[in-house]
Amino acid sequence: MSKSAGCCKRFLHYAFDYETPKTLVIPSLGVGFVFRFTQFLVVMYVVGYVCVVQKAYQDTDTVISTVTTKVKGFAFTNTSDTEPRFWDVADYIIPPQSDHSFFVLTNMVVTPKQVQSHCPELPSPSTTCVDDCNCVEGRSDPRGNGIQTGLCENYSTTARTCEVLSWCPLEIDTKLPEHALLVAAENFTVLIKNSITYPKFNFHRRNILPHVNSSYLKRCEFSRLTDPHCPIFRLKHIVSEAGEDFQDMAVKGGVLGILIDWSCDLDWWAGECLPKYSFRRLDNKHPVNNVAPGYNFRFAKYYKTADGEETRTLIKAYGIRFDVIVFGTAGRFSIVPTIVNLGAALSFLSLVPVVADWFLVTCSRKRDLYKSAFKQQLLCFQVWCNATFCCSCFQSSCDS
Amino acid sequence: MSKSAGCCKRFLHYAFDYETPKTLVIPSLGVGFVFRFTQFLVVMYVVGYVCVVQKAYQDTDTVISTVTTKVKGFAFTNTSDTEPRFWDVADYIIPPQSDHSFFVLTNMVVTPKQVQSHCPELPSPSTTCVDDCNCVEGRSDPRGNGIQTGLCENYSTTARTCEVLSWCPLEIDTKLPEHALLVAAENFTVLIKNSITYPKFNFHRRNILPHVNSSYLKRCEFSRLTDPHCPIFRLKHIVSEAGEDFQDMAVKGGVLGILIDWSCDLDWWAGECLPKYSFRRLDNKHPVNNVAPGYNFRFAKYYKTADGEETRTLIKAYGIRFDVIVFGTAGRFSIVPTIVNLGAALSFLSLVPVVADWFLVTCSRKRDLYKSAFKQQLLCFQVWCNATFCCSCFQSSCDS
Amino acid sequence: MSKSAGCCKRFLHYAFDYETPKTLVIPSLGVGFVFRFTQFLVVMYVVGYVCVVQKAYQDTDTVISTVTTKVKGFAFTNTSDTEPRFWDVADYIIPPQSDHSFFVLTNMVVTPKQVQSHCPELPSPSTTCVDDCNCVEGRSDPRGNGIQTGLCENYSTTARTCEVLSWCPLEIDTKLPEHALLVAAENFTVLIKNSITYPKFNFHRRNILPHVNSSYLKRCEFSRLTDPHCPIFRLKHIVSEAGEDFQDMAVKGGVLGILIDWSCDLDWWAGECLPKYSFRRLDNKHPVNNVAPGYNFRFAKYYKTADGEETRTLIKAYGIRFDVIVFGTAGRFSIVPTIVNLGAALSFLSLVPVVADWFLVTCSRKRDLYKSAFKQQLLCFQVWCNATFCCSCFQSSCDS
Repeated sequence: MSKSAGCCKRFLHYAFDYETPKTLVIPSLGVGFVFRFTQFLVVMYVVGYVCVVQKAYQDTDTVISTVTTKVKGFAFTNTSDTEPRFWDVADYIIPPQSDHSFFVLTNMVVTPKQVQSHCPELPSPSTTCVDDCNCVEGRSDPRGNGIQTGLCENYSTTARTCEVLSWCPLEIDTKLPEHALLVAAENFTVLIKNSITYPKFNFHRRNILPHVNSSYLKRCEFSRLTDPHCPIFRLKHIVSEAGEDFQDMAVKGGVLGILIDWSCDLDWWAGECLPKYSFRRLDNKHPVNNVAPGYNFRFAKYYKTADGEETRTLIKAYGIRFDVIVFGTAGRFSIVPTIVNLGAALSFLSLVPVVADWFLVTCSRKRDLYKSAFKQQLLCFQVWCNATFCCSCFQSSCDS
Repeated sequence: MSKSAGCCKRFLHYAFDYETPKTLVIPSLGVGFVFRFTQFLVVMYVVGYVCVVQKAYQDTDTVISTVTTKVKGFAFTNTSDTEPRFWDVADYIIPPQSDHSFFVLTNMVVTPKQVQSHCPELPSPSTTCVDDCNCVEGRSDPRGNGIQTGLCENYSTTARTCEVLSWCPLEIDTKLPEHALLVAAENFTVLIKNSITYPKFNFHRRNILPHVNSSYLKRCEFSRLTDPHCPIFRLKHIVSEAGEDFQDMAVKGGVLGILIDWSCDLDWWAGECLPKYSFRRLDNKHPVNNVAPGYNFRFAKYYKTADGEETRTLIKAYGIRFDVIVFGTAGRFSIVPTIVNLGAALSFLSLVPVVADWFLVTCSRKRDLYKSAFKQQLLCFQVWCNATFCCSCFQSSCDS
Repeated sequence: MSKSAGCCKRFLHYAFDYETPKTLVIPSLGVGFVFRFTQFLVVMYVVGYVCVVQKAYQDTDTVISTVTTKVKGFAFTNTSDTEPRFWDVADYIIPPQSDHSFFVLTNMVVTPKQVQSHCPELPSPSTTCVDDCNCVEGRSDPRGNGIQTGLCENYSTTARTCEVLSWCPLEIDTKLPEHALLVAAENFTVLIKNSITYPKFNFHRRNILPHVNSSYLKRCEFSRLTDPHCPIFRLKHIVSEAGEDFQDMAVKGGVLGILIDWSCDLDWWAGECLPKYSFRRLDNKHPVNNVAPGYNFRFAKYYKTADGEETRTLIKAYGIRFDVIVFGTAGRFSIVPTIVNLGAALSFLSLVPVVADWFLVTCSRKRDLYKSAFKQQLLCFQVWCNATFCCSCFQSSCDS
């Protein structure tokens, strides 16, 4: 035999000799049952929990979404404080368009005819004065409303305050109406059009479902029981589903979330992927640890008088901001998570013999026989050739 | 030997005795080949599919992004309905700034000189009347335009309708121009600046690539073939890439998605992490199951007359809202997913001997010999000491 | 024995016969130590790295969030270019409300009293003309400011340019003040209210922590060291934490990210889930490859003169857009990732005997003995019945 041929032969042996453990077949119903039962538990876990409940065989993707909203409704206000006024969508939706949220004006403090001028500050401990010495020209108090001119003026017959440069007259925002001005806003409706995409699965969907027709959409209104897929919502209904009272919330404003859950299992026919709506108040309504409770902001409408002077109407707008929050995770069968989860489960299957072996050598009736049979102590092996000794060896404890 | 020394010895045996399965080396080319081939398949799956195709060794993070947009262009309109007017960016972008989206006005219904007043309703089955008895004071029909005063007035020489309190004159939005007013908007351009972050990897990037210079950016225009990384887009091009016609879409408006995909493999040199642009119409253009097709909203410009009365110009604005949707997942090598995937693959490697054993005992030529060699029936074992019997045992079926 | 009984018996054997590898117990301290040490390493990796560091036993969810912002502060400007003016929040926040971002005006180019008219273009190489022949009626140059009327007019005493239809007078935006107009904006404060949800865990939280009270919130100001959980931020502080200078940034504007990291481990008591604030400039401040550096946009205030003509004040607004970017991943113990990771780790435990076996047959002192003991060559087996030969077999190399 040449050297290279021997080398080749050795390589073949190295590469293709198959090593397999010598196994011992134990025909014991007890051990066999423990073995199969443990196997059954692992398989049940994999099939029942990982696959059916957790859907761990799926690859997932998060939703990307676009929202357009269109509010409908009008109101007429006629309170003692303000003059009669008709409100339509161009008046109470600020800003007129926005993505993912819309603001509905419900209450306000209006300060009309403001001009750049100077006027006495609103009375407060830091602004009241006796004479000009209490006021410092150029000082701007962060809690005040303008830059002091250094003069002390009569605010009213009883109070004297420092004069400030500002938009005058100053806004007196403590005069917030106790009952919301636009209480009629509770009957406004909003149409929410939501279009979503799961880019990984190239899956597109709209919240206006394919099977509904235009005539249904013109008269429907969302209701969890009767019309769960109508995309038209009455504001009052949204607020009450969030566990709030519209009248209460309208006074100081707030932020209300319209949550659309698009969690879907895309393995089944796609028609089953439907939006689930829920509603939740997002700001803190409790007055504890709450600065600036509710939701409000200031904006102004600017005018020019005939002689070119700029005036403005300042509006401190209280209202409800509705945030449309779209979320969801879609899953679809994918080979990688399946393999990973099956692999992990297989690892646990490889633990099963450990359990069965432990049962075999501790609880089984013939445990001593089994123990000696499948655990061969090497010491015994060393004297294995002598068959007589070996037998006696098996009957001894063999542990020294 | 003292008791404690024996105990110690037993502990040492318990802790450091090494148990290893007795293996049988089978020098069979057939079985060896099956074994190695199955191993090869598993390794190929792990290396080829899991690692190369699915990049399962990577940890992933989703993008967070900021977008600023700047539209350029102007237009001149001179139709029979309206007076000549020049439009620039401050006129047709509403609101003037916004994150992640911008709206370009393309068509409109303008109702100038509205004042808080009363006027007859637009004729419709529910608003026409014969005399005052048909109109109820204070009634507000959701499909109407105001609160009824209870009077029945002449709308035209032929029609009488209930009078309403509202912003008068009422908007007649059926007079939407058939050809979009600002058709010139198709030649407007938009510069999109997008800055992204993968917080987990502390990776920041902009869609204006580091190697481009200002002079290129001043004259370039996005084109999938020639300038795929120019951040300046012509609106017409965006719409046509989305498979739509700008002129059609401009009449009733719509929502168009500018999708920027930042999916990146951060294991390679970061310069390769480039944005991929795509365009898709996001609203439903088909008139089936479509309420309020297109995209429009109402806003008003408020004026004050010399005598202090508030008037407004109501504009029902039709146009295209461009939503910049940034998405993407970045992956970078991480030890945990690598370990998990390798571990799962190893589990499958541990299945390979099962396949080879099955081949050994069913298909191999010497299967009976192998079977008896590595599967030792315990019954035989019990009489193992008697070598002669054992031999005969191996030749018998050994299963009773 | 009937046929069916035999069949049944065979099934019982098939189902409940327990196969276990025959193992060899090797009482060698060296091999045992290698075995236990390798096991220890794997367990350390699983417990130490996977569980403690990477928290791979957790299921994760990404945050969904709502933000409201409220800026406070006022300023007074009195430069040589402009008339004295007082600025409050309704003047410098544009648009007045928005979700996730707010824009603070810091500098501007104001072009008042624009009307729809015609006027000579701003001088530039493409607009200068000698006589009417250089100007084409109806031409609109994208870099120009209007539609040419075909006339050549005197722009100044030295320059003649083509006349255009446009909003006149034209904006001259090169006259941007070198020092930001509203430098006082650096002392404005912003209250950021952020409410987050991890929908998978039904976990809600606000950035105004439960233990703080209203009086603290009224006077606190964010500081990384002393008040890390105060939700009121001074704009100057935000900009300086981002490594920028407010005065510099205010001139040409920019985009600044307020990043709120809500990454949480929900296994521990929920009180520990706190927002972490960081600040980063999001636009490119370097003038290289930078078109339209900074951040600006144009908007207009529309007025009507007494005779009904529309005029506008065009404002090119430079300022800082603050984007509130909320991100984070929450983790909570979940059985599926735990099982997957443990399973993968178990796979590695099953590799340990491979290491120990390799040590056994290569490095151990009695390696030849061990090798022959646990690797039985089948050839030897074939002649196993002859005990004498077997012994000699064990002493031979047995590989041919």
